Amino acid sequence: MSKKVAVIGVGITKFGELWNESFRTLFVKSGTQAIQDAGISSKDIDALFGGNMSGGQFIKQEHLASLAMDHTALLPKPAMRVEAACASGGMAVSAAYMGIKSGMYDVVAAGGVEKMTDVLTNRTTGALSTAADQEWESFQGATFPGLYAMIARRHMHEYGTTEEQMAEVAVKNHYNGSKNPNAQYQREITVDQVMNSAKIADPIKLLDCSPISDGAAVVILAGEETAKLVCDDPIWLVGTGQATGSIALHNRKDICTLNATVEAAKRAYGMAELRPKDISCAEVHDCFTIAELCAIEDLGFCDKGKSGQFVQDGHTRVTGSIPINTSGGLKAKGHPVGATGVAQVVEAVLQLRGKAGARQVTDPEYVLTHNVGGSGGTASVHIFGR
Amino acid sequence: MSKKVAVIGVGITKFGELWNESFRTLFVKSGTQAIQDAGISSKDIDALFGGNMSGGQFIKQEHLASLAMDHTALLPKPAMRVEAACASGGMAVSAAYMGIKSGMYDVVAAGGVEKMTDVLTNRTTGALSTAADQEWESFQGATFPGLYAMIARRHMHEYGTTEEQMAEVAVKNHYNGSKNPNAQYQREITVDQVMNSAKIADPIKLLDCSPISDGAAVVILAGEETAKLVCDDPIWLVGTGQATGSIALHNRKDICTLNATVEAAKRAYGMAELRPKDISCAEVHDCFTIAELCAIEDLGFCDKGKSGQFVQDGHTRVTGSIPINTSGGLKAKGHPVGATGVAQVVEAVLQLRGKAGARQVTDPEYVLTHNVGGSGGTASVHIFGR
Repeated sequence: MSKKVAVIGVGITKFGELWNESFRTLFVKSGTQAIQDAGISSKDIDALFGGNMSGGQFIKQEHLASLAMDHTALLPKPAMRVEAACASGGMAVSAAYMGIKSGMYDVVAAGGVEKMTDVLTNRTTGALSTAADQEWESFQGATFPGLYAMIARRHMHEYGTTEEQMAEVAVKNHYNGSKNPNAQYQREITVDQVMNSAKIADPIKLLDCSPISDGAAVVILAGEETAKLVCDDPIWLVGTGQATGSIALHNRKDICTLNATVEAAKRAYGMAELRPKDISCAEVHDCFTIAELCAIEDLGFCDKGKSGQFVQDGHTRVTGSIPINTSGGLKAKGHPVGATGVAQVVEAVLQLRGKAGARQVTDPEYVLTHNVGGSGGTASVHIFGR
Repeated sequence: MSKKVAVIGVGITKFGELWNESFRTLFVKSGTQAIQDAGISSKDIDALFGGNMSGGQFIKQEHLASLAMDHTALLPKPAMRVEAACASGGMAVSAAYMGIKSGMYDVVAAGGVEKMTDVLTNRTTGALSTAADQEWESFQGATFPGLYAMIARRHMHEYGTTEEQMAEVAVKNHYNGSKNPNAQYQREITVDQVMNSAKIADPIKLLDCSPISDGAAVVILAGEETAKLVCDDPIWLVGTGQATGSIALHNRKDICTLNATVEAAKRAYGMAELRPKDISCAEVHDCFTIAELCAIEDLGFCDKGKSGQFVQDGHTRVTGSIPINTSGGLKAKGHPVGATGVAQVVEAVLQLRGKAGARQVTDPEYVLTHNVGGSGGTASVHIFGR
């Protein structure tokens, strides 16, 4: 059994409204890029774990892992789709890690893909709402902006967090996105623009929301021996944790805390034998700006309730003490839901390799990725190091 | 790391058109039963892997593993949904096995659930067709009866297989189902009834088809030490294999052979160090009667092309040399797609425990389960022994 697991290759498509790309071309392109980056042959791959939230609803295609193997000429090797709503990508990486640790596989592809723009927008929102509790939330008319608006309103009430502080998250992530050639939005915005954008679910405004996106990302993981053999700069997955939380908001003791994040982080930090202050930078799940505020609290980067001021003070900028979402995050990079968790790992690897271009953090040692399903029904946390 | 993995508990609901059951009550009931059967507490379960094909399309609910943890009071433990169309259940068992072998978990629940009757039948058929190749098959109007009809027609042409021989599969499985109190159809049928039933996609008739069903099944797996500690009669998972095949029929060299089955079986036999003749009885994926004929050939129970005569000669009856689908199979027991692969394992365990009642095979040593996604895009094979 391999003691350590490394990422040896990464691939990612541009994120956005990709009218000229199909679901198939997206995973083929990112997969090919990851294989080339790893410097291996596709023949070396033993299995695939593919994250996808809802091919069935978005493009009328389930059985996606089989399709991916077919179109990447990897038949008859094993493939499995994993799903945990918007945390599907992070889960695919977990499953791949488990596959290598089990001794069943040595080199594994973990991919994530979502094609969301081929349906009408109202159907996209409907499909996304199936990540919430169908009987208690979705059927009653709750959408994700509505659910996160309740979290935001409570956070404002409890801790004095302001709408301007939430807007600062969007401003920072758009700034980072402007440095990322794969980001859906590569332009800066201002706090005023966020504050004056259309209200979606008060206090959440249009520019507090991550967009609807197409995109795919693939990472190749390998056991220790192979990683050292084929790769000059393997990036080690030093800690991983996943956890579930109540799928519906009303069952939680405190809706400002995503218990799944707290528990997943506890597992990942424990395994890595690291503390929040050891993390150099992180990609967190900012489906809405309030989600990034909760995440940096729940991951231990600042005290509970203090995230608004923490962000406003610049600590989470690329030049700050704990840069958050250097890729642009879900907000600016885009959020093809099943791909997001894998895309976060791509950014972590680029940062650790020192290949993150204009958004490079100075000499990062450990990078954390944090992927959430629904409003916190699932959380996946990974920690990577050189 | 646990060297061996055992099934220590099983639970299953009745399969059928369960108007008084919801998706939630189904997995809670089967899960509770499995935990009680294992003689453990729910607190002992470290993680869940849940097989489901299309909650998104059938009941507008994705993120199902999180929901399951929430409703079975297992928060905040990790949970992951796995999907491989109708092979989702078999894959959930694979993932659970991998989780234990990886050393990450010791006691794991592998569940499968599908609620298919809460939508109109034409939408059910549409949802099922998303397991085929969307661009090349489903969008062109191909349904699963149509795809399997092509396989049947070719099998008849190549090997002289007759419609009456296919009907014999349904007759046998209905006979077995009549002995299974959880089966959707607990009544015998005759070859004449099959032959005179409505044509669905020539040569496939209504009684060649498995039904649309609701149902759930859960098995609890544990590592060697724990299994021996808590369980008097652990049933060991001695071999497991999964493989992918071309998702669309037109890409295959020979549509009468499901290459995914051949490859998955090769892996499972290899790991178990067993041959087809060592298997005492098997649950195979008879979504249509022709699928059972292909399966018993591809699994090595008879020569290619000889399955029609093999079945007609009675070899696959409960009293035959290799009893197939003692549970009634998908045909009579029912086919809640995501649950099927797990339900097959439940039957294997009952047979090996000698608790299969009126359908008990005499002193079985090894039981094989075989679960297929789509028309052969995925196959999962497990072998169990005492």
